[in-house]
Amino acid sequence: MPSESTCFILNEPPHRDVNFDLKDDKSTFKLVKRSLRPLKEGEILIKTLYLSNDPTQRAWIQKGLNADRMYTAPVLKGDIMRSTGLGEVVESRHSKYRPGEVVSCDLKWADYSIIKQANIFNKVENTKVPLTWYLDVLGMTGLTAYFGLLDVAKLKATDTIVISAASGATGSMCVQIAKKVIGCKRVIGISGGADKCRYVESIGADVCVDYKDPKFYSNLKKALGEEKYADVFFDGVGGQILDAMLTLVKPFGKIIACGAIAGYNNIKGSSIVGWPQIVVMRLQVLGFIILDYQNQYELAIKDIVRWIGEGKIKVDKDSFSLVDLSNNFEKIPETWGMLFSSQKGPGKLLTKL
Amino acid sequence: MPSESTCFILNEPPHRDVNFDLKDDKSTFKLVKRSLRPLKEGEILIKTLYLSNDPTQRAWIQKGLNADRMYTAPVLKGDIMRSTGLGEVVESRHSKYRPGEVVSCDLKWADYSIIKQANIFNKVENTKVPLTWYLDVLGMTGLTAYFGLLDVAKLKATDTIVISAASGATGSMCVQIAKKVIGCKRVIGISGGADKCRYVESIGADVCVDYKDPKFYSNLKKALGEEKYADVFFDGVGGQILDAMLTLVKPFGKIIACGAIAGYNNIKGSSIVGWPQIVVMRLQVLGFIILDYQNQYELAIKDIVRWIGEGKIKVDKDSFSLVDLSNNFEKIPETWGMLFSSQKGPGKLLTKL
Repeated sequence: MPSESTCFILNEPPHRDVNFDLKDDKSTFKLVKRSLRPLKEGEILIKTLYLSNDPTQRAWIQKGLNADRMYTAPVLKGDIMRSTGLGEVVESRHSKYRPGEVVSCDLKWADYSIIKQANIFNKVENTKVPLTWYLDVLGMTGLTAYFGLLDVAKLKATDTIVISAASGATGSMCVQIAKKVIGCKRVIGISGGADKCRYVESIGADVCVDYKDPKFYSNLKKALGEEKYADVFFDGVGGQILDAMLTLVKPFGKIIACGAIAGYNNIKGSSIVGWPQIVVMRLQVLGFIILDYQNQYELAIKDIVRWIGEGKIKVDKDSFSLVDLSNNFEKIPETWGMLFSSQKGPGKLLTKL
Repeated sequence: MPSESTCFILNEPPHRDVNFDLKDDKSTFKLVKRSLRPLKEGEILIKTLYLSNDPTQRAWIQKGLNADRMYTAPVLKGDIMRSTGLGEVVESRHSKYRPGEVVSCDLKWADYSIIKQANIFNKVENTKVPLTWYLDVLGMTGLTAYFGLLDVAKLKATDTIVISAASGATGSMCVQIAKKVIGCKRVIGISGGADKCRYVESIGADVCVDYKDPKFYSNLKKALGEEKYADVFFDGVGGQILDAMLTLVKPFGKIIACGAIAGYNNIKGSSIVGWPQIVVMRLQVLGFIILDYQNQYELAIKDIVRWIGEGKIKVDKDSFSLVDLSNNFEKIPETWGMLFSSQKGPGKLLTKL
């Protein structure tokens, strides 16, 4: 067992933008060494193989946050930064896990992490599929699309759906499930920039609208075609995009609220004025977090693997980005930061250690 | 049959505040005479007895509104202003209605209105109860409280509920149903000014918090007591009050969105930043309009009459305001305008013609 781990701690919880300059005293994260204590009964030592990069991690580190109003524990000043990831069991004091096994779990921005069974989502037992799938199409983002559309939205083939952040890990999975699995009448993506929009159309959207285009709102209306309004809006963004869509969901339609990236770095980005539309159009807004479905992951993973086999869900080199940091550990924070910039390509952003 | 009616038309659809100065060319409403044509088959001529005054009427007259995004037809420039009300059948070409009968229906700001059966909510057949009840506790506002709590929120005795605009016609009914019919664990009102707050407490709220108090937010938190968060927020206001409550609804809690008066005169009043709370706390927001329950009004009215008889719902001279305009027809608009000021007393505001 190694005696210490290299890791990133939360140095200065950010109020607004994250400070990625590691040389700055006020840097959001700080690279440190921490000694590893011996395992207690029930604990497992994991060597990190891959880190998942997710916008929701931004919400865990906000300065002055209220732990009561979070769906998971906050990361506090001085704590090692958390992430989901894939890791290899190095040592185990839990009967269910043995050295050499690979698990999908709560990890840290660290080379080694000590975890408990409650932190493990699933063991990687299907060795016929690439390991990275377990953080992507079979991971939290893929599962968010799966349960968000099938269980929360109860999406039907007769529905017209609009999906924001449609080139992202969750959004691109939504587009494919909506169009190729459920066979929705009309699937409209919203994404930023022409390249991403063409990508979203290439995986099944009838049309993808660029929110950076000054004519965004009229293009969005045009995209809805004769239907004029959407039955379902699947939203991971909030803010201005949500405000536009509040005027474009049908009476008795649904908004699936699974993220709010527009306000993660600055609460003002979450500002909307369209709430009265919820009243007059009798909309249902359903907030949802994937962790509530943990006891159903296994079944969902089987479905998704089958859909991939049937060619309904695309997973190839273009459908995600893998950043290899095996010799660049110190770039973990700024790699994650690509989620909040335009640098990132379509689909899931993964870090290999 | 009279040959003409005296009425108010929408002279200038307002963008922001309503202009009540009838002498001004740009006045929102204008007093005119309109000739009454003979009735067609199926039509009914109604003499107005009482007008209901409702905040939602503001949304029907907004300048530049999109008819698609309304729950009822808009009132356009030059149209006679609409209102719900109680009227007496003067002449009828519909077999179900006879002269002398009284109906609760869609009317106009006019002494006489021609309507169809579809505009009639119910005939006033229970002559044991005061006529005005049919626009108050047994009218749209009372019914909004009834269906909003029982059907939409599915409120339970174990719930803690917060009710905004709690001294208003809908809110005061909500407070009483929540506390005295359902027997909720804790009922918290939000209202403006000490007098209204004391009134809300007098009809059953465990406590009522004044939104005009600079310490509103901390008082609201204090009001929630050991519970700390609400199971249900029943909201007819939106804007800043909603933003405060978004941070104070329990995980998996519900927001019943039945009105948004904060933004009726200025859309900026609807501005909120708390949407991300819906995601992380997995809230359900349920928009609702009473008209969707029209086929169930009768049963609800029987329940409410029984509750009044049992002393659970209070209806007396303090529980509503009646403005007698039998010699002051021209004051119809400004009487309605009291809804948007602090002049109005607790409960329903009715106009007698």
